[in-house]
Amino acid sequence: MARQIKPAEQRRGELLDSAQALFFERGYDKTTVNDLIQHAGLSKGGFYHHFSSKEEVLEALVERLASASMAELKDVLEGPDLDALTRLNTFLSRARQMKVEQVPQMRGLFETLFQPGNQVLYHRINAASMAVVSPLLARIIEQGRQEDRFDVPDAHMAAETILHLGAATYRSVAKAMNAAGTDEADSAADELEQVLRFQGVVVDRILGLADGSVDYVEAGFARAIIDGLAEPRN
Amino acid sequence: MARQIKPAEQRRGELLDSAQALFFERGYDKTTVNDLIQHAGLSKGGFYHHFSSKEEVLEALVERLASASMAELKDVLEGPDLDALTRLNTFLSRARQMKVEQVPQMRGLFETLFQPGNQVLYHRINAASMAVVSPLLARIIEQGRQEDRFDVPDAHMAAETILHLGAATYRSVAKAMNAAGTDEADSAADELEQVLRFQGVVVDRILGLADGSVDYVEAGFARAIIDGLAEPRN
Repeated sequence: MARQIKPAEQRRGELLDSAQALFFERGYDKTTVNDLIQHAGLSKGGFYHHFSSKEEVLEALVERLASASMAELKDVLEGPDLDALTRLNTFLSRARQMKVEQVPQMRGLFETLFQPGNQVLYHRINAASMAVVSPLLARIIEQGRQEDRFDVPDAHMAAETILHLGAATYRSVAKAMNAAGTDEADSAADELEQVLRFQGVVVDRILGLADGSVDYVEAGFARAIIDGLAEPRN
Repeated sequence: MARQIKPAEQRRGELLDSAQALFFERGYDKTTVNDLIQHAGLSKGGFYHHFSSKEEVLEALVERLASASMAELKDVLEGPDLDALTRLNTFLSRARQMKVEQVPQMRGLFETLFQPGNQVLYHRINAASMAVVSPLLARIIEQGRQEDRFDVPDAHMAAETILHLGAATYRSVAKAMNAAGTDEADSAADELEQVLRFQGVVVDRILGLADGSVDYVEAGFARAIIDGLAEPRN
């Protein structure tokens, strides 16, 4: 009676592996549910057991990517010897570094998310990623409150608000996507960097810190992202 | 040669009138493009000349509603004798009052926007409304900078950031929608009010003002919204 079948979790993981391969290499728009099924060696029924749509696959993939990124930052998030501001700045710096490294391979995904009309999908993806990151950021902020260094009424609301700022860069990032590899790349990078600098000040102030305390962005970051977006995909 | 036809702008306006009547009374989900066409006395071709989808009609309707609201606030926005903080606080107070008044009739729209899976549409609508409000808010902030009362590096980015905070209330408002008219209404109102209070502090700080300077929310506002959502529709 016991057929040799893979556990559901493993199946689901393999589906996400396929999604990652296809969305990144071929692009999200150019990948169909049938492509995913074929690549993962699944039946249609098997697919719909796990996911109701391609969007839902992407949502789960983003959640997995965000969790993997946070796992890589475990030492920063949990290291016992860091005060909250140092922890936050190290966390942000490492997260930026990871973004710059990951952008070229994720181009096929970014192309979709920042296309006109896809802001909807972007927000869904953003929410999935925020759900992973928000409690970890809240923990750092709570530490800062405990240390009497951060002056903010609520760590969780502060984390949510700070992560929501990300969505406010949508327009600048979309512009940067289009400018990547063109003459407009410089001005698009400048604009994105300005927005990020402004948001850095907002983060300082939300946490009750002096302007410039939080290293939210560094010179050249926006440009590095745009250059990464411009790299030809394999 | 000159047939008696209505100017395109008038046609478009009538379509939006129909959309407003049907979306509000019947609900957005229960209104089809055919309903709109019939109600406005248009041909299918006439409809698609103006809009490519029902979503696009809603977007245009929200833009029109936002413009109408801002027109009603013209005295606050342009009155010459107000310092920036008084202008901002009066603007916010009047805007809240309008929201409380409008919520019951807009229930049919809210029901859709705050349903699971419709966050996408919400963001589109939110962006349409922000595009109208943002330059007006930026002007108030710029006045505050000129008066050396607001301490913020950029009025336009500040306005965008402050308006983006609205999207961060999505989850609490969705919860409130579901709680309206039930035993959960009290706690949903408390939660929404807490989030709004927190955002008020964020706005103070973005503008470089002492906590509590900006009257972002008042006691009972969240409850009034929730009660408005619970009112039976005609």
